[in-house]
Amino acid sequence: MRRWNGWGDDSIQPELPGSGLKFLKRRIGHAIPLPDASLEEVIARVPPSRLPEHSLIQTDPDIRVRHARGQSLPDWLAMRSGQFQVFPDGVAQPEDAGQVRQLLGLALDQGFNVIPYGGGTSVAGHINPMEGDTPVLTISLERMNRLLDLDTESQIASFGAGTPGPLVESQLRAHGYTLGHFPQSFELSTIGGWIASRSSGQQSLRYGRIEQLFAGGTVETLRGTLTIPTLPASSAGPDVREMVLGSEGRIGIITEAKVRVTPLPERESFHVMFFRNWHLAREAARRMVQAKLPLSMLRLSNAVETQTQLALAGHPLMIGLLEKYLKLRGAGEGKCMMTFGITGSKRESRFALEVVRDFCKPFRAVYMGTGMGRKWAEKRFAMPYLRESLWQQGYAVDTLETATDWDNVDYLMGLIEVNLRHGLSSDEQPVHVFSHLSHVYPQGSSIYTTYVFPVADSYEATHARWQHLKETTSAMIVSNRGTISHQHGVGKDHAPWLPEEKGELGMAALWGLVRTFDPGSRLNPGTLLRGDGGTTGTGEQTDP
Amino acid sequence: MRRWNGWGDDSIQPELPGSGLKFLKRRIGHAIPLPDASLEEVIARVPPSRLPEHSLIQTDPDIRVRHARGQSLPDWLAMRSGQFQVFPDGVAQPEDAGQVRQLLGLALDQGFNVIPYGGGTSVAGHINPMEGDTPVLTISLERMNRLLDLDTESQIASFGAGTPGPLVESQLRAHGYTLGHFPQSFELSTIGGWIASRSSGQQSLRYGRIEQLFAGGTVETLRGTLTIPTLPASSAGPDVREMVLGSEGRIGIITEAKVRVTPLPERESFHVMFFRNWHLAREAARRMVQAKLPLSMLRLSNAVETQTQLALAGHPLMIGLLEKYLKLRGAGEGKCMMTFGITGSKRESRFALEVVRDFCKPFRAVYMGTGMGRKWAEKRFAMPYLRESLWQQGYAVDTLETATDWDNVDYLMGLIEVNLRHGLSSDEQPVHVFSHLSHVYPQGSSIYTTYVFPVADSYEATHARWQHLKETTSAMIVSNRGTISHQHGVGKDHAPWLPEEKGELGMAALWGLVRTFDPGSRLNPGTLLRGDGGTTGTGEQTDP
Repeated sequence: MRRWNGWGDDSIQPELPGSGLKFLKRRIGHAIPLPDASLEEVIARVPPSRLPEHSLIQTDPDIRVRHARGQSLPDWLAMRSGQFQVFPDGVAQPEDAGQVRQLLGLALDQGFNVIPYGGGTSVAGHINPMEGDTPVLTISLERMNRLLDLDTESQIASFGAGTPGPLVESQLRAHGYTLGHFPQSFELSTIGGWIASRSSGQQSLRYGRIEQLFAGGTVETLRGTLTIPTLPASSAGPDVREMVLGSEGRIGIITEAKVRVTPLPERESFHVMFFRNWHLAREAARRMVQAKLPLSMLRLSNAVETQTQLALAGHPLMIGLLEKYLKLRGAGEGKCMMTFGITGSKRESRFALEVVRDFCKPFRAVYMGTGMGRKWAEKRFAMPYLRESLWQQGYAVDTLETATDWDNVDYLMGLIEVNLRHGLSSDEQPVHVFSHLSHVYPQGSSIYTTYVFPVADSYEATHARWQHLKETTSAMIVSNRGTISHQHGVGKDHAPWLPEEKGELGMAALWGLVRTFDPGSRLNPGTLLRGDGGTTGTGEQTDP
Repeated sequence: MRRWNGWGDDSIQPELPGSGLKFLKRRIGHAIPLPDASLEEVIARVPPSRLPEHSLIQTDPDIRVRHARGQSLPDWLAMRSGQFQVFPDGVAQPEDAGQVRQLLGLALDQGFNVIPYGGGTSVAGHINPMEGDTPVLTISLERMNRLLDLDTESQIASFGAGTPGPLVESQLRAHGYTLGHFPQSFELSTIGGWIASRSSGQQSLRYGRIEQLFAGGTVETLRGTLTIPTLPASSAGPDVREMVLGSEGRIGIITEAKVRVTPLPERESFHVMFFRNWHLAREAARRMVQAKLPLSMLRLSNAVETQTQLALAGHPLMIGLLEKYLKLRGAGEGKCMMTFGITGSKRESRFALEVVRDFCKPFRAVYMGTGMGRKWAEKRFAMPYLRESLWQQGYAVDTLETATDWDNVDYLMGLIEVNLRHGLSSDEQPVHVFSHLSHVYPQGSSIYTTYVFPVADSYEATHARWQHLKETTSAMIVSNRGTISHQHGVGKDHAPWLPEEKGELGMAALWGLVRTFDPGSRLNPGTLLRGDGGTTGTGEQTDP
């Protein structure tokens, strides 16, 4: 069954290898776990619902607990401590667009707010209700999870917006197709959520981000149904499709998503190479993508992430042998691991691998074949479970991500890492920090940073640690040419930094869009845009 | 010098080969040219300017004539007949963003409207002033035509928005780079115009449409300066960049464009293949792009276009030999010509050609090498000049274009062609119609249709012929899953059909955007969105 207070299915419980635990202790010290609250305790704290009785609305405490929070670190702390603060007043699980329309009509008539809910995997507070006098209904799309149509000639599939990753892929696979969208949250997140939050999958280099995959569909708004026709491309004015992408529930609820699919490839392989140092590795990555080499993914771990991944892999004997071999080949301390994917026909795959290996020779890459790549592919969605294992050892883990142009990648990654690493120095507490580049573009790259620190002696103090790290680093990112998010979206957690990225007039454009569809701010208020936008659509208020 | 009443430089005057003229006469009969008005006559009709005197504003009739019209067929008829109807009251040619701001401030203070002007190549009425009581200033960006910055690490170039195609490429070429954006209008159209109208270049298959090339920049609006930062990708809400793309001057004037550039390729080649019939050719094209073959462009002429191109090529003896050879290989009457491009390193190019040729064997393609492809590349920007030659023989020529999903390509192309071919049957006048697919996508394709008909015995009657063909075909396109424009934009000519494509709420979103930046409709009114949007932003009025 799905965990009510953590990630994924509770039957999955990955063990933290002893070598990994030792590695962490050496770096950031011993940790004492905080006590978990029980589901019963939390349920007992759920206040009565303020919503009207309605056949589509469930108000029992259990379902309200299970839809109250996402997967950010503050969500995690709230769920583990049992201090949820706010719950939705009810949850609806409509079965079709008609029921969604009915619920939206009710929201207008009865004056309650609505939060659309996909897989509940947000790490930025998208689906958390806000405290206030207005009742909140969470609308979960989970029952709208089917492949509705597949046009193999135009390669367009239509899905109910609540279809989660595994059901997207399995239903397509039955027909020989794939969407090719594999975000880290794949196991639980939904196609509608991907669109609403501008998601990016691990193989975006081949298949594109969700912006390139989303072809059209249907959005239920408070003003009626917005239908976006599928068109391969158009110059007919600004693209309404692009206004839905990233709208985070502020203009309506996506009910049907039409996406561009691809026949399953003849061959798919993942490969690993090591580089002697960051400089060579980063230059290789940049030049590979700028040379448009036919890769399906590229992920480059910096030296600390490489070291961490090897420590957490277990099998210390085998890893020891690997490191000896790499050292002989010149890749000792400071080495960086690159994982890359090749997808296509056998002939194309063979050619692509030859080209990549030749291309990387001047960068002194040590090519390791597909063994480690296969392992990566097998475990690619298991990472979030590690948080559970670390938590049980008393370690909190969070991630931060951005994207910036190549000329700024090293500088910004350095700033972020240094700020996090020394961010708890007033507590005399070191933080373990490491990064990778993934989602590389000719223009630049995403930077994905993970940080681990021991919990403090209370939930409040642990939250304060997180808050300090998050806020100082976010401010640093937007004032140094980084986006506040490359793939996690804005939600409530990133909203304070959006104005610096978009500028006053960019914010006015977003407010204009939201007000066109929802002048009364009934839909997911506080997410994406804070406050009420003021009279000119540029003012910022801390709270509505 | 640039023609005041037609396309391009008046020193270029391509001859229509005798074989081509004969071919046309056989199909649509003899034609008697209409008389051209002289520049002097037109200048004499320019009314006094209603603009205030200002050092940045020129009001002499000559410059007002030269900025009054674009290159649509009605523009052509207006210029040739001398019946311009409306002229801008003045033209400014600012040298920097400061002067643009100054002019916009003046427009607000003094109450005049503003039309931004790039290369004046619109074929949809984007830059035509509308009749009315409000004075109109056309702001031409032509003096802002320089490469301002080139970041070779992030591969981003910054240009003044008025830089025309040849100056974009030559300034980049000096540094070893290319933008790779080659619309048919390349010779005159500008980078700012490409962005404002969502242009697509002939090699979009490799380099992307302008949506993929535009990374950020600066737009001067009536509310101040909108700055869009360059980011390789972002999930931070709806993309403001995408709201500028296709905004057609309604939200502001683009002054600086930052675009994604690529090193000049080691090798670039264009190849020609013939197919026995449309069905085989179309299937080959669809499957090639869906298989992600590494092509830089693909253009597929239908049988009539193939026949027309061979007739217009001149050299009837050589063409005769070619046709004999093709017939021997099975490609006789009904044959279709495909031109495709391969760009990259020598090794990649060799591999790509092998893959393409093998891929097309089951479709019985006859590969002709690079000779005809080279000819196509040499003449790729000469096509608009042909209009001049045809005009002098009494033939009017226009094009219509759309894009639709693959399952609808044949059907829609058939509808368009039949409607145009028989569109003048009440005059008992056949129309010569042919099409090609270019800009192919895995999901679908653009359809580009050319139609030629003899002018009637007056300008008014010729305009009526055009209007009938254009209006009936446009209505057919949007009611049959086509976009009203894949690459020409909306302007004034396509605006009546935009609501059917975007839907009521899509139109409301566009009106919301325009009103955020320009509540008084000072900027290019009538372009993109007709009327004033009503009180809810969805109403349509025929004229403001």
